[in-house]
Amino acid sequence: MLPRGRPRALGAAALLLLLLLLIGFLLLGGDPECERLEPDGRAGDLGCPRCPLTPRVPSDGRLRGASALDGDPMAGLWDHNRSACDPWPQLPPKCELLHVAIVCAGHNSSRDVITLVKSLLFYRKNPLHLHLVTDAVARNILETLFRTWMVPALGVSFYHADQLQPQISWIPNKHYSGLYGLMKLVLPGILPPGLARVIVLDTDVTFASDIAELWALFAYFSDKQVIGLVENQSDWYLGNLWKNHRPWPALGRGFNTGVILLWLDRLRQVGWEQIWTLTAQRELLTLAATSLADQDIFNAVIKEHPELVQPLPCVWNVQLSDHTRAEHCYSEAADLKVIHWNSPKKVRVKNKHAGSFRNFYLTFLGYDGNLLRRELFGCPSQTLPEAEQLQRALAQLDEEDACFEFRQQQLTVHRVHITFLPHKPPPPRPHDITLVAQLSMDRLQMLEVLCRHWPGPMSLALYLTDAEAQQFLHFVEASPVLSARQDVAYHVVYREGPLYPVNQLRNVALAQALTPYVFLSDIDFLPAYSLYDYLRASIEQLELGSRRKAALVVPAFETLRYRFTFPSSKAELLALLDSGLLYTFRYHEWPQGHAPTDYARWREAQAPYRVQWAADYEPYVVVPRDCPRYDPRFVGFGWNKVAHIVELDAQEFELLVLPEAFTIHLPHAPSLDISRFRSSSTYRDCLQALKEEFHQDLSRRYGAAALKYLTALQQPRSPA
Amino acid sequence: MLPRGRPRALGAAALLLLLLLLIGFLLLGGDPECERLEPDGRAGDLGCPRCPLTPRVPSDGRLRGASALDGDPMAGLWDHNRSACDPWPQLPPKCELLHVAIVCAGHNSSRDVITLVKSLLFYRKNPLHLHLVTDAVARNILETLFRTWMVPALGVSFYHADQLQPQISWIPNKHYSGLYGLMKLVLPGILPPGLARVIVLDTDVTFASDIAELWALFAYFSDKQVIGLVENQSDWYLGNLWKNHRPWPALGRGFNTGVILLWLDRLRQVGWEQIWTLTAQRELLTLAATSLADQDIFNAVIKEHPELVQPLPCVWNVQLSDHTRAEHCYSEAADLKVIHWNSPKKVRVKNKHAGSFRNFYLTFLGYDGNLLRRELFGCPSQTLPEAEQLQRALAQLDEEDACFEFRQQQLTVHRVHITFLPHKPPPPRPHDITLVAQLSMDRLQMLEVLCRHWPGPMSLALYLTDAEAQQFLHFVEASPVLSARQDVAYHVVYREGPLYPVNQLRNVALAQALTPYVFLSDIDFLPAYSLYDYLRASIEQLELGSRRKAALVVPAFETLRYRFTFPSSKAELLALLDSGLLYTFRYHEWPQGHAPTDYARWREAQAPYRVQWAADYEPYVVVPRDCPRYDPRFVGFGWNKVAHIVELDAQEFELLVLPEAFTIHLPHAPSLDISRFRSSSTYRDCLQALKEEFHQDLSRRYGAAALKYLTALQQPRSPA
Repeated sequence: MLPRGRPRALGAAALLLLLLLLIGFLLLGGDPECERLEPDGRAGDLGCPRCPLTPRVPSDGRLRGASALDGDPMAGLWDHNRSACDPWPQLPPKCELLHVAIVCAGHNSSRDVITLVKSLLFYRKNPLHLHLVTDAVARNILETLFRTWMVPALGVSFYHADQLQPQISWIPNKHYSGLYGLMKLVLPGILPPGLARVIVLDTDVTFASDIAELWALFAYFSDKQVIGLVENQSDWYLGNLWKNHRPWPALGRGFNTGVILLWLDRLRQVGWEQIWTLTAQRELLTLAATSLADQDIFNAVIKEHPELVQPLPCVWNVQLSDHTRAEHCYSEAADLKVIHWNSPKKVRVKNKHAGSFRNFYLTFLGYDGNLLRRELFGCPSQTLPEAEQLQRALAQLDEEDACFEFRQQQLTVHRVHITFLPHKPPPPRPHDITLVAQLSMDRLQMLEVLCRHWPGPMSLALYLTDAEAQQFLHFVEASPVLSARQDVAYHVVYREGPLYPVNQLRNVALAQALTPYVFLSDIDFLPAYSLYDYLRASIEQLELGSRRKAALVVPAFETLRYRFTFPSSKAELLALLDSGLLYTFRYHEWPQGHAPTDYARWREAQAPYRVQWAADYEPYVVVPRDCPRYDPRFVGFGWNKVAHIVELDAQEFELLVLPEAFTIHLPHAPSLDISRFRSSSTYRDCLQALKEEFHQDLSRRYGAAALKYLTALQQPRSPA
Repeated sequence: MLPRGRPRALGAAALLLLLLLLIGFLLLGGDPECERLEPDGRAGDLGCPRCPLTPRVPSDGRLRGASALDGDPMAGLWDHNRSACDPWPQLPPKCELLHVAIVCAGHNSSRDVITLVKSLLFYRKNPLHLHLVTDAVARNILETLFRTWMVPALGVSFYHADQLQPQISWIPNKHYSGLYGLMKLVLPGILPPGLARVIVLDTDVTFASDIAELWALFAYFSDKQVIGLVENQSDWYLGNLWKNHRPWPALGRGFNTGVILLWLDRLRQVGWEQIWTLTAQRELLTLAATSLADQDIFNAVIKEHPELVQPLPCVWNVQLSDHTRAEHCYSEAADLKVIHWNSPKKVRVKNKHAGSFRNFYLTFLGYDGNLLRRELFGCPSQTLPEAEQLQRALAQLDEEDACFEFRQQQLTVHRVHITFLPHKPPPPRPHDITLVAQLSMDRLQMLEVLCRHWPGPMSLALYLTDAEAQQFLHFVEASPVLSARQDVAYHVVYREGPLYPVNQLRNVALAQALTPYVFLSDIDFLPAYSLYDYLRASIEQLELGSRRKAALVVPAFETLRYRFTFPSSKAELLALLDSGLLYTFRYHEWPQGHAPTDYARWREAQAPYRVQWAADYEPYVVVPRDCPRYDPRFVGFGWNKVAHIVELDAQEFELLVLPEAFTIHLPHAPSLDISRFRSSSTYRDCLQALKEEFHQDLSRRYGAAALKYLTALQQPRSPA
C-alpha cells in the first residue's frame, strides 16, 4: 500500500489544478464562445458540454473569494448557469447526516414549512436533521405532524423562539417577518455546540434539487469564510430605488438570506455574536430600524468583513420578488435548485415566468406526503422505533385473511396536521362546550350552515389528501362565514387506505377540544339554534363537573327533504314531527339506535330524565373532555358510535336526556362506505369479527360487568 | 485564436486520460476501500467522495467493451453504484432535442405510458420528442391526450403498429407483451432516416432522474457499439432455474430490454435487420418460440456479436421482477435512475423493498399533469401555436373584471383522456343510442345503479384530478357490475380552474358517442328500465334518421327520498305522482324548465306529440349524434342545457314528447357550484352577461329568426 494522508492529497490537489488548467486550455482555451458564456447562455448549443452544477473554475484557478462583487457580480466568480466541463463538487457520502435550520411561527408559516420540507424530502438522498425554532403554535402543529409522519432518516429538534426574543428584541424592525426574521442571527448560539455546519432556510423557499448538492458547496469555503449566500436579485441595496432611499450598507447588490450556509463552529470561534451585535448597534445610530430584518444586518457585517462570505451560485436562491433580476439567473440556467417566494405576495407574485415557477411549488403543495415515508437504501438504522414496530405488525398480517383490509386500516398511522388554519383557543370558561365532528370533502358544504347553528367552539377532523387540503383552504378563504370564525379548529388527517377511519378521526378532533365539555356530533346534523347556550346552562344547573358523572343526551331527528325550515323551538319541531316532515332519527331503518332516548317521554318532559343503556344505542351526547376515546378498531361503516356508548356505560356514565335539546340530520347521498357495507357480505362479516374482539377486550377490562353487553350482542340482529 | 479541430481535441483527450490515471493513482490508488467498493456500499462513509453518476474509469483506462460479462458482470466495467471521483458524463446541451421511442397498444398500456411520460417530463430539462408505435386504440387515446395536454417542448409522432406486424408476426412468442413486444426490433427501419439516436422504453418503467443523463451515455459508445443495455437482474438466462430450462442464448445473465439506447444510423449501416432476422431464424430451428419477446432476440444477437453492446450502469434499469437481483444494484446506489416493473404483477410485485419503489410510481400516477405544462427557459420556440394563442387570450383578460374567473375557465383547455378504461365499441346498429352524461367524484355511486337502468352503450365524461382518476379506476375494478360492462366509455377530463366546465364535459362525452343517436342525460337521473329498448323502437317507428329532424323528449320527474321503489311502468309512475311520492322535475323551484313538456297531456298521451319551444325549456332529449354541441361558455351552474335546447330549436329540430318515456331525478346534496350561485350576486351577474353574449352570437348566426329568444330572455325572471 502506498503512503497515505495529507501531503499526498495536497500534492494531488496541486497537480489537479495544474492539469485542469492545461486541459482547459487545450479543450476550451481557444474557444471564446465557451470561455466567455454569453448572456443568452447559448454556449451549449455551440458544442460546449454542459455540467450539471455551477461553480466554475476561473482561469486563474482561484476557487474562492468575494471578488465577484467587483463590477457586475452576476458575471463574476460563480458562473450562474451551466458551466463548461467542471468537476462536480463532491457530494457528501450518502449516509452523512445533513442539518437544516428553519425559523417558523404561527399557523400559516407551519403550512409553508411543511411544503418546503416535502420538497426537501422529495429530492434528498441523505439523512436529514431539522432544527426548528418555533413559537408555541408552530411547535404544537409540527411536533404532531412529524410524530405521525414517521419519515425514515429524518430527525427533528425544536427550539423555543420565545426564549430567544430577548437577544434580538432590541432591534427595531420594519419587515413583515417581525422578530422571527431576526432569529437567524442567533442560531450559532442556540444550535448544539457540536454542530459544525447548517443550512438555514426561510419558510418561503421550494427545493427543486437534492440539498446534498447545496451542502457540497461548504467544500469551497476558505478557512476564513463562515457564511455562504446568494447575491440579492434586486436593486434594493444599491440605494437608488427612490429619492432618499437609504438601505443598510451592503457590498454591491448585497446578499439574500433566504438560503444560508452557516459554518457554525467557525462563527463561534470568530465571535459572531459580538460582530453582528456591534455592527447592528453602530448602524442603528443612523438608521431607524432594519427594513429587511436579519438580511440588513448580515449585509452590514459582510460589507465590513467581506472575507467572511462565500458567494453561492444564483440557482440556489432564485428570488421571485416583484422587481426581481432573477431572470438573469434562470434564463441561462439549465437547472434551478431553490426557488424563493420572497415577495409579500408569495406565490401570487406577478412576474413574467411566475406561472412556471409556481408549478414547482404546487407540485409539493399537493404532493402526497405519505409517499415520502420511503427508506434510504443502504444507510444503517434510519427507521424510528415506532415505525419499525408498525412495520412488524403490518408484516404479521395475513393477506389471505378476509378482513386484511380492516386490520391494515386499523394499524395505519395517519399523518395529522392539527389547527391547519389560524385558530384562537376559546377563553377558559367553566361550562364551555366544543362541538366535535369529522368529515371529508363531500361534506364541506355543511360547514357554513353548521357555523350558523353552533356559535361556540368546534373541533373538526377532516379526512383529506394533501391536494384536497388545499381545496379546503381555498373554500374557507372564499367563505365570509367561515373566515370570520377563529374558534373553529380544523385538523387535517391525511388519507391513507381504503376504509374511512371514522373513530381515529373522532379521536383527533376530541383530543384537540380545549373546553371542559364536548358535544360529540356528526357532520350531517344541525343542532337547534339555541343548543349551545342551553347545553352550557344545563351543565351548570346539573352541576355536571363536580356532582355527577353523566352524558347528556341530545335527541336526534331527521328530515328527508333538502329544503325545509329549521324549527326554532321544541314546539315547532313537534309540529313538524306530527305533520310527517320530520322523523326521529333513522326511525325506518335502525330504530334501536335511538329508541332508549324514549321520544314519547321526551315530548312531554320538562326536566332532564335518566335512561338506561340498551343494545345498539348510539345517542349524540355531551360529556367532559376527558371522556373515553372512540375505539379505533372500527373503520369504515358500522358500530363505531355504538361501541363508544358501551364504553361510557361501562364506565358508569349516567345517560340524561335533555328536554329542550334536539339536533336534526340532513339528507345526503349514501356514502361509498355504506354502499360497500350493504353490498358486501365480507364487509359485514368483518364488522362482526371486530365487534366480537371489542367485547373480548371489554370483558378483560370490566370483568363480569361487561357480561350484559356480550349477552345483548348475541341476540341476532342486523347491524346498521 | 489558437488552432482548433480534431487533432487538438484528440491530443487533449489522450492527455486527459493520462492525467486522470495519475490523479486517480494519487488520490485513490492507494485506498483499497475506494477502489474496490465493498458490497455494502460503505466506501462513501470512509471519506471517498461521491459522484452523482456512475460510469467508472477502470484502472486500465478502457472506457468501453463488453468485458463486464467475464466473471461477475455486476462487478465489472460499470460500477453500478456511486463511484468515486469520476467526471460527470457530459450532459447534452440544454436545448438539444432528445428522442424517445415507446411501443404502446390498448387501453391499459396507454394509461401506463402516460405515467411514464409524466415521470420523464418531471425531471427532463431538454426538449423531447416521443416516437409512439401504437395500435388504433392507443393512438386515439394518446393523440387526444397530447393535443389537449399542450406541453411545451414536447413533440409526438405516431407510427402504425399494424403496419409493422408482417415484419415480426412470423416469430412465435410466449411473452405477455405479444407481438407488440417484438416491435422494438424493427424501430431502426421505421423511425425517420435522419434520426441518429433514440432511447427505447418499455411502458412499465418509471423515471426518477433526468433522461439527459441517460442520453449522455451515448458518449461512451465506441465506434462499433450500437446498443446500450443494462444487465438482466435475474438468473433467467443462466438456464438453471429448473430442469430442462432452456432459455435463449445470452452473454452471462444477458441484458434487459426495458431501457435501450439505440444508435440508429449505425444499426442501419451494419445491416441490423438482416442480423437479427438471421439470428432469430437460426435459433428458432431449435427453440420453439421466444419466451421474453424481443429481449431473447437482442440477447442472441449480442451473444454472437458482443462488440455491438455497450453495457449501461444498473441504476438505469432497476428491475423489480419477483426473483430480482436488483438489490445488488440499489443497495449500493445513492441514486436510482429508472425503475422497471418487469413482473407481470407490475407494481403489485412482492419483494422486500417494493413499497418504497412503489412510491416513485405512485408519485407520477397521481401527479397533476397540468403542472408539467411549464416552459423550459432559454430554449427557442418550444411553444405550440395553439398554446401561444391561448396564452395570448388569457393574457388579454382583465383581472379586475368581475367575471374574470368565468372567462378564464372558458378559455381553459382541459387535458382529456378518452376511454380511460377498456372499452368495446358497440356493434353498428342503425337505431342504437348512447346515454351521454358527465360527473365528478361525488357522483360515482350513481354508476352502478345507472348501469342497471340503462343496458345500452354509455359515454360518460368524468371531471377528475389525476389522483381521483386512480380512485375511480379502483372503484370500477372493485365493482362487479361496472367491470362487466365493456360498452360504457369513461372519458377523464382533468380538473383545472375553480368552475365546473359542465358543457365542455358534455361535449367530450358527446364527441365520443359511437352510435347514430344519443340520449343527453344527467348523472342524477335514472331512466325507466325499458327506456333503452323503447327509444330504439321509437326511433325506428318515427323514421327519425331519414324523415324527420327531431329531438325526442323524455319527460323528467323527481323524488325527494333516498329510498324509493322505482316505477316499472308509466302506470306505476302516475300512481306515485298522485300519491305525492314523485313530482315533475323541479316543479317547486323552476317549473318553466320543463313546463313545455306538458305533463297533463303526457298523462293521457298514447302517441308522440309535438311541443313548442318556450323560454328556459331544458328537457332531456334523444337526438342524432351529429347534433349541435353544447356552448362551452356556460361554466359552473346555470343555463347550460337551456342554451343547447335554444340551439336545437334554432336549427329547427322538432320537439317530440314520447308517451311511454320517463326518467327520474334522485336526490343529492346541493353542489358547491349551486351554493355559490345562490350566495353570490357576482355569480348571477356573470351568468346574465354570458346569456347576453350567447344571444348576440345567436343573432349573428340565425339572424331575425333568433329574435324570439332575445325577446324571451328580456322578460325578467330569475334563472336557476
